[in-house]
Amino acid sequence: MNVRSTEQRVLDARRLLQDEIDLWVASANESGEVHLIPLSFAWDGAALIMAAPERSLTVRNLRRAGRARVAVGPTRDVVIVEGRVAFHRPEKEPELAETHATGSGFDSRTNDEPYMLIHLLPDRMQTWRTPQELPGRHIMRDGVWLA
Amino acid sequence: MNVRSTEQRVLDARRLLQDEIDLWVASANESGEVHLIPLSFAWDGAALIMAAPERSLTVRNLRRAGRARVAVGPTRDVVIVEGRVAFHRPEKEPELAETHATGSGFDSRTNDEPYMLIHLLPDRMQTWRTPQELPGRHIMRDGVWLA
Repeated sequence: MNVRSTEQRVLDARRLLQDEIDLWVASANESGEVHLIPLSFAWDGAALIMAAPERSLTVRNLRRAGRARVAVGPTRDVVIVEGRVAFHRPEKEPELAETHATGSGFDSRTNDEPYMLIHLLPDRMQTWRTPQELPGRHIMRDGVWLA
Repeated sequence: MNVRSTEQRVLDARRLLQDEIDLWVASANESGEVHLIPLSFAWDGAALIMAAPERSLTVRNLRRAGRARVAVGPTRDVVIVEGRVAFHRPEKEPELAETHATGSGFDSRTNDEPYMLIHLLPDRMQTWRTPQELPGRHIMRDGVWLA
């Protein structure tokens, strides 16, 4: 299979971030016990906005860590995103809540349980479709797109 | 959408484990730094057999933890599997290596880099397709199928 250029990967990754509506979030507590869960998200062109119950293990773990590693797309068209996370109450940040609801199709404000919006600002991204694409997988470093 | 019975979920989960060829693995080190990566796997009816480079972060993290949490299937048809992990060298366990290669389509023995087989024996499983299915998501506890 063809090995894509960095330029093509950036284009494909941006489209995937735009099109997908949920992703995988890995998180861990301070003793290294790991959690893994799918969450809905929206991509605003610069950041990923997720939503999760305030009392969930994922929110507690991510608050502790201050960073997240998430995976978007199927296992054969992977975009891995890492970056710092910030937390916002949907009722305090209506614009952010609206962006999340519109982009993901899930409105966290309609739920009985209190939700938190998780704002992930990427500083590292990787993408690959095949093992052959692994060597050139980096498409963002220190928050800068590599193409 | 219809909320499936536990019986139906067990059937669907077993078929998914049989049909899928890769999954998401979350792991963490002792200070709670998390890693997330897709790996190829095979399901032998009782356990999941994955393969990963011996020196990879995932193998080091899982060895430390002794347990893994993995996710199989797309985000809207999730099977989450947790259990103890054991590690085997492909050249020492040809039957296990063959099961992995046949089931996943990826032969870890053909790689230049030394690989490890990761044997995950499930003790907890959850599955859901919609948020409505979350309450009845448990399909295995203490290694026992609930239907």
